[in-house]
Amino acid sequence: MTQVAEWPEWKSRGLAVETPMPVVELSVAERNVRKLQDACDKAGVANWPHIKTHKSVAMARLQVDAGAAGITCQKLGEAEIMADAGLADILISYNIIGEAKLARLSALARRVRLTVSCDGRLVADGLSRAMRSAAASLSVLVECDTGRHRCGVPDVETAVALARHIASLPGLAFAGLLIYPPNGDVSATRAFVEAVRQGCAAHGLALTTVSSGGTPNVRRVGEAGETQYRSGTSIYNDRQMMAAGAAGPEDCALFVHATVVSAASPGRVIVDAGSKTLTSDLGGLTGYGLLADYPGASIYQLAEEHGFVDVSQCAKPPALGEVVRILPNHVCPVSNLFDRIALTRDGKDAGWLTIDARGRVA
Amino acid sequence: MTQVAEWPEWKSRGLAVETPMPVVELSVAERNVRKLQDACDKAGVANWPHIKTHKSVAMARLQVDAGAAGITCQKLGEAEIMADAGLADILISYNIIGEAKLARLSALARRVRLTVSCDGRLVADGLSRAMRSAAASLSVLVECDTGRHRCGVPDVETAVALARHIASLPGLAFAGLLIYPPNGDVSATRAFVEAVRQGCAAHGLALTTVSSGGTPNVRRVGEAGETQYRSGTSIYNDRQMMAAGAAGPEDCALFVHATVVSAASPGRVIVDAGSKTLTSDLGGLTGYGLLADYPGASIYQLAEEHGFVDVSQCAKPPALGEVVRILPNHVCPVSNLFDRIALTRDGKDAGWLTIDARGRVA
Repeated sequence: MTQVAEWPEWKSRGLAVETPMPVVELSVAERNVRKLQDACDKAGVANWPHIKTHKSVAMARLQVDAGAAGITCQKLGEAEIMADAGLADILISYNIIGEAKLARLSALARRVRLTVSCDGRLVADGLSRAMRSAAASLSVLVECDTGRHRCGVPDVETAVALARHIASLPGLAFAGLLIYPPNGDVSATRAFVEAVRQGCAAHGLALTTVSSGGTPNVRRVGEAGETQYRSGTSIYNDRQMMAAGAAGPEDCALFVHATVVSAASPGRVIVDAGSKTLTSDLGGLTGYGLLADYPGASIYQLAEEHGFVDVSQCAKPPALGEVVRILPNHVCPVSNLFDRIALTRDGKDAGWLTIDARGRVA
Repeated sequence: MTQVAEWPEWKSRGLAVETPMPVVELSVAERNVRKLQDACDKAGVANWPHIKTHKSVAMARLQVDAGAAGITCQKLGEAEIMADAGLADILISYNIIGEAKLARLSALARRVRLTVSCDGRLVADGLSRAMRSAAASLSVLVECDTGRHRCGVPDVETAVALARHIASLPGLAFAGLLIYPPNGDVSATRAFVEAVRQGCAAHGLALTTVSSGGTPNVRRVGEAGETQYRSGTSIYNDRQMMAAGAAGPEDCALFVHATVVSAASPGRVIVDAGSKTLTSDLGGLTGYGLLADYPGASIYQLAEEHGFVDVSQCAKPPALGEVVRILPNHVCPVSNLFDRIALTRDGKDAGWLTIDARGRVA
């Protein structure tokens, strides 16, 4: 249990935002951006931060200004928003499927330096079809399943075969691999990458890019043989990242400010942040977020607009009307619920952050 | 397990929407609106549908046109959007706390017939302060905890005392009670209401309004002694309502259309709807939604933009690129993730529904 004394003093207590509202402390977010860039620089790995966490043009620019080589988007709609704002180097780490999306991809590829991932021949065939009338080729990474069991080809042989297939298709340029190793030791992933590298080399194909990612593995950046790194959550961090040992209290940039709206029964208060603010993401944790200044309190249940807080273990529970700050379990889907979120710098009001790509899931 | 044969034929298979996208079949939603109105009419109870589910002006108008006496909102921001669109009778079933919100409440009370709930003296004092310069009084319901253990005064004595306090305050009109009984038998709630009614009567206070709610209890509308009813989810229904016995497959109006974007490993496919589309709400169920046309499939895990589907038990699993329809566990927070959702009528494209109050949590 993180003790209250470990949390930085809450300088923004007097911030006049209407709750519930996520609030980002810029000094912490900027330091987190710097830390990620430094970690990548030290490892000689290109930094391609994932914008899924902030979905904000301003934050993407902050990352590029700090030295990021490009940005990563999960969905085409996010990439379009970032391209509209002038971000020029974009990786979409997703299989793009379907004629409507392929037409959008083709249009996007004409205005930014675009790379996409792909884990199947039919996916590659679609990408090639989409690029048939384009002047330049689309860079394509073979997505490999190195243990997350999500997307990705499951073995070395299939990876090499797909690389060859991509290299054979008009409009596409085979560029390397995209991996997403499980948190922890990456030696098995490194062996996988090396085997694919040798298999590709046997057919005259080079892995120009090996893209890895994940905030918990930032401390291991470079160890899987990657040339680029995608980290999203590290810009803000959250309760999951603290549980994973990837962040301390001082690294948490975003807190949801919420008001105690009911204290009608002893031992329980209700805050105005529910699942439409904090989301129901548990991520293996107990409770739906951490009341930073009330370590004895537990958010044990959520309704859509109500957070149920057990305060029976608090020496002094938060009072009706009091604004509390909640560290969310998982910060990425929280940003995605708001059109704009509040900013502070050194605890003082610093305006608003527009969540430009909010809701861009398609 | 609901068998595939029980599901209405998927008429909208050829709908050209980009996935992931919630799609509402209007003929079902309209029938659901009618059913709720009929149930309330039959019980002689005023219908005050909760807009938290659809957050849409068009759907609110549909409900009022069908006979609803007013609409219920959970948050002030939702009520403001509905008032802007001309909805004139609004209940906010929430404690309104804090000076900024009280100023907004006061402004709203000048332009619609507004009722709010309240579960504490300090809350009532704030409401009175907000109304001090208003010409009319604000109708206030005492929220009672009849077993959900959320907001609400916990016992009859406190309810009566709060009713008397409200009645004594300038700018407020005590109007009755707001309850939210647990799903199932409501006889204990009825007894509670009756005891408060007698306690209030002893002080010359009448319960003009007793507002109850909840979709699973629509079948019991009137049984708790209520005069008005708040049901939200019944307009669309979802997997939770089916599990509660409150809806059948033919009553489900909203499905998320999603595309199979990866089939790289046997027994598993990945769809493009993750927690930023389906939410992580489990609601006591196993899995993150139901693939309506693949009863053997299970959405066993979500990432933000990936739904992990176990298809090992499917005779014929969905193919790469196929669009599947997913019945969400909990439909209300799904609407809240989209600026607009697609409509069909009898399976044919019927345009878009704007989610006017999306994200209005404050």
